Amino acid sequence: MNRVETALEALGIVLPPAPNPVAAYRPVKIVGSIAFVSGQIPMRDGALEAAGSVPSTVSVAEAAQAARLCALNGLAALKAALDGDLNRIQEVVRVGVFVTSDAGFFGQPAVADGASQLLVDVFGDSGRHARAAVGCIALPLGAAVEVEMTVAIND
Amino acid sequence: MNRVETALEALGIVLPPAPNPVAAYRPVKIVGSIAFVSGQIPMRDGALEAAGSVPSTVSVAEAAQAARLCALNGLAALKAALDGDLNRIQEVVRVGVFVTSDAGFFGQPAVADGASQLLVDVFGDSGRHARAAVGCIALPLGAAVEVEMTVAIND
Amino acid sequence: MNRVETALEALGIVLPPAPNPVAAYRPVKIVGSIAFVSGQIPMRDGALEAAGSVPSTVSVAEAAQAARLCALNGLAALKAALDGDLNRIQEVVRVGVFVTSDAGFFGQPAVADGASQLLVDVFGDSGRHARAAVGCIALPLGAAVEVEMTVAIND
Repeated sequence: MNRVETALEALGIVLPPAPNPVAAYRPVKIVGSIAFVSGQIPMRDGALEAAGSVPSTVSVAEAAQAARLCALNGLAALKAALDGDLNRIQEVVRVGVFVTSDAGFFGQPAVADGASQLLVDVFGDSGRHARAAVGCIALPLGAAVEVEMTVAIND
Repeated sequence: MNRVETALEALGIVLPPAPNPVAAYRPVKIVGSIAFVSGQIPMRDGALEAAGSVPSTVSVAEAAQAARLCALNGLAALKAALDGDLNRIQEVVRVGVFVTSDAGFFGQPAVADGASQLLVDVFGDSGRHARAAVGCIALPLGAAVEVEMTVAIND
Repeated sequence: MNRVETALEALGIVLPPAPNPVAAYRPVKIVGSIAFVSGQIPMRDGALEAAGSVPSTVSVAEAAQAARLCALNGLAALKAALDGDLNRIQEVVRVGVFVTSDAGFFGQPAVADGASQLLVDVFGDSGRHARAAVGCIALPLGAAVEVEMTVAIND
């Protein structure tokens, strides 16, 4: 079992199944040593876990958990794209976090931390990344959060 | 005539003129083997084709067509940046789609498909890409959609 | 004194201190010859300079100045990440500009120009970049603008 799988096990994390391939776009696109992960929403077992705006419908704590779930779904997509070998991930490079936000809500960083902390928990220092967190009026399927990631990989 | 031009012709697509160079930023910036295309809005013959929020002012079908037009404008910009040779495009890597959205509208993926499908129609499997689609409260000039692209190119 | 520092001095610009390292993410992440700068907000001396929506609370001119300040904060972060040597920046590649926008505000490009022009003033032609400018319902801490940047660097 490799380094990343060991970390996941120590954290008690079982990755979800990889998202189904979609039509004209892909969950992950690899070019050279960079993998681009499509925006992930907080799906669990085929259902959206956090729907609505933050904080009126979804609390900040719930949204942070949803961001963590988005990151896990992204790792699941990466695992499938990397033929099961998450150890090929060298660095998490950039994370974009979109949060469905009430007009006066300014706590997008606290929501985004749910994804960022998960990545550091799993990858250690190489999991630290550049990040942009912004508030959106609406996201696909009504998701409270969407997370996209860019990672550097080994050949 | 090269592969991509042949595909465009078969699809009955005539690329629009490239967007004019702008002041402090560029329609396309190339670094190494990656070309970054600036956010494109659905301009046609100098006029904005789809203005307003989805779906109250612009229908989902209209917005998807607008996203397709954004992608075509991006290809026109790439063609100019690549000295007319679209065949140098190896892979479409990432597409970001921003949709001006009513507060309760969650169909951003259906809108974004207008851009994604065009790219697959033109480039085949290498046109498949990672994607993030989000809802915005407002976009430049009142555009219903904005699409930015990252592509991998040959030297 | 190097080329970039000379340009900054000629413009009368003193870079602010670099943003503090944050917890699970970083102000700058470098992978290979690309540096990704996290989304910057218009902080000056520890206080947010432009808070609120454009143009109801923050004017377009004020927001453009705020975007310029975001870019300066990004350069400060890059300087720290590059061991003080801004001359290692070869090209500004991509700039993402998020503007807290009233529902009917479509002048995001004019706001973004505050950041874009600063980068051209400092780096000349190599400061020209691809750009996406979009309107958001809310941004971290209530910032009127957030700017993220991608730059190409020398080894």
